[in-house]
Amino acid sequence: MTENDIYQKQSFGAGLEKGTKPALIVVDFVNGFIDPEVFGGGNCLEAAEASVPVVAAFRQAGLPVVFTRVIYAEDGSDAGVWCEKVPRLKELTETNPMSQVVDFLAPEPGDVIIRKRQASAFFDTPLSAILRSKGVDSVVIVGATTSGCVRATVVDAMSHDFRPTVIADCVGDRALGPHEANLFDMKQKYANIIVAKDVGQILP
Amino acid sequence: MTENDIYQKQSFGAGLEKGTKPALIVVDFVNGFIDPEVFGGGNCLEAAEASVPVVAAFRQAGLPVVFTRVIYAEDGSDAGVWCEKVPRLKELTETNPMSQVVDFLAPEPGDVIIRKRQASAFFDTPLSAILRSKGVDSVVIVGATTSGCVRATVVDAMSHDFRPTVIADCVGDRALGPHEANLFDMKQKYANIIVAKDVGQILP
Amino acid sequence: MTENDIYQKQSFGAGLEKGTKPALIVVDFVNGFIDPEVFGGGNCLEAAEASVPVVAAFRQAGLPVVFTRVIYAEDGSDAGVWCEKVPRLKELTETNPMSQVVDFLAPEPGDVIIRKRQASAFFDTPLSAILRSKGVDSVVIVGATTSGCVRATVVDAMSHDFRPTVIADCVGDRALGPHEANLFDMKQKYANIIVAKDVGQILP
Amino acid sequence: MTENDIYQKQSFGAGLEKGTKPALIVVDFVNGFIDPEVFGGGNCLEAAEASVPVVAAFRQAGLPVVFTRVIYAEDGSDAGVWCEKVPRLKELTETNPMSQVVDFLAPEPGDVIIRKRQASAFFDTPLSAILRSKGVDSVVIVGATTSGCVRATVVDAMSHDFRPTVIADCVGDRALGPHEANLFDMKQKYANIIVAKDVGQILP
Repeated sequence: MTENDIYQKQSFGAGLEKGTKPALIVVDFVNGFIDPEVFGGGNCLEAAEASVPVVAAFRQAGLPVVFTRVIYAEDGSDAGVWCEKVPRLKELTETNPMSQVVDFLAPEPGDVIIRKRQASAFFDTPLSAILRSKGVDSVVIVGATTSGCVRATVVDAMSHDFRPTVIADCVGDRALGPHEANLFDMKQKYANIIVAKDVGQILP
Repeated sequence: MTENDIYQKQSFGAGLEKGTKPALIVVDFVNGFIDPEVFGGGNCLEAAEASVPVVAAFRQAGLPVVFTRVIYAEDGSDAGVWCEKVPRLKELTETNPMSQVVDFLAPEPGDVIIRKRQASAFFDTPLSAILRSKGVDSVVIVGATTSGCVRATVVDAMSHDFRPTVIADCVGDRALGPHEANLFDMKQKYANIIVAKDVGQILP
Repeated sequence: MTENDIYQKQSFGAGLEKGTKPALIVVDFVNGFIDPEVFGGGNCLEAAEASVPVVAAFRQAGLPVVFTRVIYAEDGSDAGVWCEKVPRLKELTETNPMSQVVDFLAPEPGDVIIRKRQASAFFDTPLSAILRSKGVDSVVIVGATTSGCVRATVVDAMSHDFRPTVIADCVGDRALGPHEANLFDMKQKYANIIVAKDVGQILP
Repeated sequence: MTENDIYQKQSFGAGLEKGTKPALIVVDFVNGFIDPEVFGGGNCLEAAEASVPVVAAFRQAGLPVVFTRVIYAEDGSDAGVWCEKVPRLKELTETNPMSQVVDFLAPEPGDVIIRKRQASAFFDTPLSAILRSKGVDSVVIVGATTSGCVRATVVDAMSHDFRPTVIADCVGDRALGPHEANLFDMKQKYANIIVAKDVGQILP
């Protein structure tokens, strides 16, 4: 049996029904997660570029657009265990150019900006409450990296009972093995997977 | 550059210091996650068997032992989006033999039992508060499946600022590709990885 | 200036718009929170009795009904700091008659049952996710005690961005001073306050 | 029976053991919660002034000091239901002088700053994780207002299994009735209550 067969036999990988009001979550498309000298590389730039029309489609439809950034205090007062595992995370401060959203995806007034200390956009942030206040029941996720903050955000979206969709060509990673492996896991267990050209199908 | 090189260059994969008081979290070692006809198979049974001396070591050291079970209400009143993605999850009710901890790892009085609806042992459960009340600062994780509830629990342990250690030969999965891929991700980003025979090194 | 004037001048106490789909949360109307020898007394019984037609109205309208119970493990394995402050809380175990919902408000199949260790029905429980999966955007709260689990649940409902309404004659407390003081606080800061005979106004 | 007798008979109001490492949480002592024309008045200024030596004592002992501020986005993108109940909350933005910590309690490098959208300092913020990463097991709370953000923070501290102590003369409110009523509730159910001159007793 292939891995796919094993999962299918155990009832994994079913499609999720379409939600009624999706929000777009743009996970950590900041300079530092594009730059191969910091936390980026691989297909991250390509994925960020492919996200431009997706962001435009959500704005045109009047749907919420959320941007996330990893932000630690300049003085290290809020650094925790994750900064011990990945020491350079501490460099991502409010004013560091590496933690600014890439120019070509710049947030506009009315977009929601979520600052986070951890991988998931939902963990210890007001994201789930803000989405509820806007009547959102489903989320579409693009960003970097597939095996890190995207995966963690997708798992938490599902756990909060938002219906998650991942746009495969709009998520990127520094190395392609983990990118592919995490798309497999998310498809089987946590999300619908589509490609950018089909984004119209998930808009209301 | 190998994938390992890419991660190392970006400061991933550093070792975490040892905590002062670890708890053991036994994730979903219930009959249904051993049985290949339900959600198990692969190396799940082997991993559960390898966990027996680990549980014994924690008990002997007087350290907290936590068991998790996925439990949904008999009447489906609390089923959510995850049950749409993986329909057979709904079968895991309080009394279903498939959702009982395997006999050879049976909880004892004083062990903590966490019932959960989602992948992570921490999500919408009192686990982090209970660990705090016991003075715990680090967690050792065994269980099934590596690519599902183990991974989600490890990410949340890190996010709650508990120091996570995964015992590689005590976590199992229905298919080996995702098992290996998730061990790689966790080692790079979220946890120390050890093997069962070295468990003594992480006890106080 | 009266206290009311002070609050009004600072913009407190505005009315909340009606939600589109409310759920009813019946907080801790268990035998032990009615009985004056345990945690009840005062106007708790009266409030529970006044809740009977409210529960019926929600069921008739096909809206979600949630019951909460404080439940600790028989072996004390999950008791925390709150049990040090209020030692008799530890007696509220799954099988203790004191922690069963009162007969005349007995849950029916399809009702959601939330077990909790803390005052708030939302804290470390799946309540917010379950309500989201049911499309709920507002909550109506009855139960005991006004100054304890009701207040904590109302504050958390607001924090999760559900629109809270408290039914004044369906919440009870062991002593009337705290009952009145907490109704004042909730009205100014966290909830609409109505009386049971007007419940029809908040149904869709 | 007095109200106190009723609570005592039901096992409320027991003293909490002293923790081993406390943090100080200074709740919303910003200009707007002192100023009677915004959200302050009453005994708020007096309480903030009484907190100066408490902050000094924690700094001298090398213990963590946390300041909280209510902060909403300038463009209103994250305003929720609470801003409907209390419309002027939306004015508390990052740069508004009303949402700056009062001069005489100014944070120093190394202090933790928590930005929040809701009453509790813990709700949807990284506070509990940051405290864990610092080995904290108990919290001492000063701030404004007693009946609002202080009360909500105390309830959540207890729910997270941190041992809470409130310093009665270092918490203030716009009106004295709610101030006294909430001190009563917190003493009975959620916290030890001390006065500022005894702060030495809770330092390690």
